Amino acid sequence: MTAPASQFEAYGPVADDLPRVDELLDSLRDVEFPWLREMLGAVLGGGGKRLRPALTLLAGRLGRYDLDLLVPMAASVELLHTATLVHDDVIDQAEERRGRPTAAAQFNNGPSVMLGDYMFAHAAHFVAQTGNLRVVRNFAETLRVMARGELSQDLAAYEYSPDVRRYLDRIHGKTASLFATAAEGGAIVCGAPEPLVEPVRRFGEQLGMAFQVVDDVLDFSATAEELGKPVGSDLLAGTLTLPALLYLDRYPDDNPIRRAFSGVRRRANLQRAINEIRESGLLEESLETAQRFAEQAAVALEPLPGGEPRETFESLTEYVLTRRN
Amino acid sequence: MTAPASQFEAYGPVADDLPRVDELLDSLRDVEFPWLREMLGAVLGGGGKRLRPALTLLAGRLGRYDLDLLVPMAASVELLHTATLVHDDVIDQAEERRGRPTAAAQFNNGPSVMLGDYMFAHAAHFVAQTGNLRVVRNFAETLRVMARGELSQDLAAYEYSPDVRRYLDRIHGKTASLFATAAEGGAIVCGAPEPLVEPVRRFGEQLGMAFQVVDDVLDFSATAEELGKPVGSDLLAGTLTLPALLYLDRYPDDNPIRRAFSGVRRRANLQRAINEIRESGLLEESLETAQRFAEQAAVALEPLPGGEPRETFESLTEYVLTRRN
Repeated sequence: MTAPASQFEAYGPVADDLPRVDELLDSLRDVEFPWLREMLGAVLGGGGKRLRPALTLLAGRLGRYDLDLLVPMAASVELLHTATLVHDDVIDQAEERRGRPTAAAQFNNGPSVMLGDYMFAHAAHFVAQTGNLRVVRNFAETLRVMARGELSQDLAAYEYSPDVRRYLDRIHGKTASLFATAAEGGAIVCGAPEPLVEPVRRFGEQLGMAFQVVDDVLDFSATAEELGKPVGSDLLAGTLTLPALLYLDRYPDDNPIRRAFSGVRRRANLQRAINEIRESGLLEESLETAQRFAEQAAVALEPLPGGEPRETFESLTEYVLTRRN
Repeated sequence: MTAPASQFEAYGPVADDLPRVDELLDSLRDVEFPWLREMLGAVLGGGGKRLRPALTLLAGRLGRYDLDLLVPMAASVELLHTATLVHDDVIDQAEERRGRPTAAAQFNNGPSVMLGDYMFAHAAHFVAQTGNLRVVRNFAETLRVMARGELSQDLAAYEYSPDVRRYLDRIHGKTASLFATAAEGGAIVCGAPEPLVEPVRRFGEQLGMAFQVVDDVLDFSATAEELGKPVGSDLLAGTLTLPALLYLDRYPDDNPIRRAFSGVRRRANLQRAINEIRESGLLEESLETAQRFAEQAAVALEPLPGGEPRETFESLTEYVLTRRN
């Protein structure tokens, strides 16, 4: 693998336009409640990679690049993503995200539920602002897929199911479906040629799969500082991601995860599993899965003409595979 | 006042079509998680008045009455309403609603947040199904207004502000805005004549204001059995509704509510205030406010031709004013 690309290089020509998405997101803070302004600053302020908005803007370059349509579309996608994180943190009772206390930990459940609802409402508002019924329909469908993903994610916690297929379904619902909508939405609102819309949607979807697998590997391989949360936090919260599933597959009969899930010395057994996973080759094996999704993403791009934006999509894929946080 | 009308009489010609809305709502229960089916049954099953869907269907009679468009529109409005209640119950940590434990009390916060999100997602899906960008935009705007209403509702709890204007703003955001969208949406999707759209929206809005004031009076005047929750539960939860505000206005210098809000023998003082409000003429005075909104609703109907649906709108108003639960 090459050295990690910076996100700004990877975003190519749209990097300079992303601040317009941030400006629109900032407009949500124009609200009479100081505590809400503070919460919005905490969850929407710096630290986010804005990868989904970058995807939307890049896809727009396949048609008539119109920021008046792309910026609300991109803001809508980012809000849907962030609102989901905020509600997930209430559901999981998570303490930290991106190195800061979560809204749920900092502000309690009630305000976090309201914060998420407020962001969902604005997401719906921004997508309606595109004036494009097709993207509105996609948005609503993605919302349904993500709500189902949220459900099965929670259901999967502490359920001993060493089933990679179900894991892939889960990350599809949780991440890839929104990446797909982000990319497709940008293409549609800018009137990209119809034969390119499905390829770019497919590219977003496969990139989202790769992104989430890498995310799940980083949860084991990165340092707590890079992660902004404890190493192995998914497993500690009872969620089995790809590295843990491969570990279960390697030691099917008796292993610390199985013992922890059946209630035996939970924390100690999970910590032992985290250490063993970090020292095994299972993280590299998981990254090979991410690599395969990245290859599918590249295949999806084949109908696109050469040059930019295709090259930027390729550099985005490289960034997703090599990022460290 | 006349004897309470039954809701079925009041809904006139659309009463027979409301089961189609219930059927569509039931389709949400086609989900692989038994606990979610159970929760959906608990919050969407019988007991609801389906007043908002009735309003949508009735407004559709001003145009080409098309149930294929009206049923998703009506289901969308009912889901938005119910999802908001479910999240409100998490926010308020409410124990009972409609005589049953709330989802939040029965299933804990996490599943209730997911249940609400699942219903919001389907609400967005159903409104997109109408294929009408104008109602989609209204829906998104209503979502924003309601999210703000949710915020100011929570903010108002235990904030001593004897301000009727703020109360009216709050119930506008919480209830009247969705009644307005329910009515307007029905008219728009059925292509009602344009000069009737704004009047029917205004009718819905004023009916919603009357409905909420009556609701807030019933919280004091009805029995715990009729309410399905303790008498005076709003005040006990720290929310000042119209009867309590009038009471504060009557006894501005020293009163049990003010003492309770400053932390003195909270429960006993609130209970005393509830008893005094029940025995005062303040409930009748509050109902006069509801009556005034009903009159505004009637004024809004003036541009409508005579006959049905105008007469049904009038009987609906009568039902809203005279209902006992």
